[in-house]
Amino acid sequence: MLSTQPAGVDRQVAEIEELLRAVGAILKKRARDILSNFRITPPQLDALLVLNEHGELTMGELCQRLFLACSTATDLIDRMERNQLIERVRDTADRRVIRLRLLEKGRRIIAEVLEARRSYLSGVLGDVSPAQKEQIIQSLQILSDRMGRG
Amino acid sequence: MLSTQPAGVDRQVAEIEELLRAVGAILKKRARDILSNFRITPPQLDALLVLNEHGELTMGELCQRLFLACSTATDLIDRMERNQLIERVRDTADRRVIRLRLLEKGRRIIAEVLEARRSYLSGVLGDVSPAQKEQIIQSLQILSDRMGRG
Repeated sequence: MLSTQPAGVDRQVAEIEELLRAVGAILKKRARDILSNFRITPPQLDALLVLNEHGELTMGELCQRLFLACSTATDLIDRMERNQLIERVRDTADRRVIRLRLLEKGRRIIAEVLEARRSYLSGVLGDVSPAQKEQIIQSLQILSDRMGRG
Repeated sequence: MLSTQPAGVDRQVAEIEELLRAVGAILKKRARDILSNFRITPPQLDALLVLNEHGELTMGELCQRLFLACSTATDLIDRMERNQLIERVRDTADRRVIRLRLLEKGRRIIAEVLEARRSYLSGVLGDVSPAQKEQIIQSLQILSDRMGRG
């Protein structure tokens, strides 16, 4: 990969970029492995997590938060509704507006998936000391803060 | 999100899981923003990066490395071939085998995208000290090592 690194670029930034790419790819793969034990797909989990965090959303709000075209998301939501993970409900104030609501089964799957992820991480980080784990937490916090801002 | 965290689970592991989820989502979004300035999609970039790292691959090898169904990947590869990012070549030893080869335009796009990512990171991490950056590198290395193993 060094062949793609131009001379003069900050060595640390180049290393962080490369590591973020590696960690991103591994995370995606592991998340998929863990989900294969549940009957949902990665985009479905993303939709459940967004609804869990933000409460009832309209289709437009959900698409925006998932960075998905609404045509793609409609298909996703149809399948999730059939699978009883979520339901479409009419807004009580404006009956023309439809909101998406997380159902108990969806909530249960989120809890199970997150527990499976923690259990996986707990295993692979078993021999990492508490001090090193604290360092990992701080590092991820810096990345999340700075990259989250823009 | 704390509502989904059962009592008794290691506090540090739960924090790392939550932060990895946040960083993963932000990374995906930022990678997409950066790519919007180039004429390729995130799965196309993934395919270019795999071919850049592993050299000429057969379709089966590429699907495997991308964790994609070969039917999905065929569509992707067709579009990339039309866009002159890659080409299909016959294996010289066994002419029944087709390999995918990165073309100059594909190589140039990789270099430009990686440069754009480094430049973005360099900006958002501008006020992070070299010592903190070193800590981020070490932390990501631990995560990449441990999660990469299994």
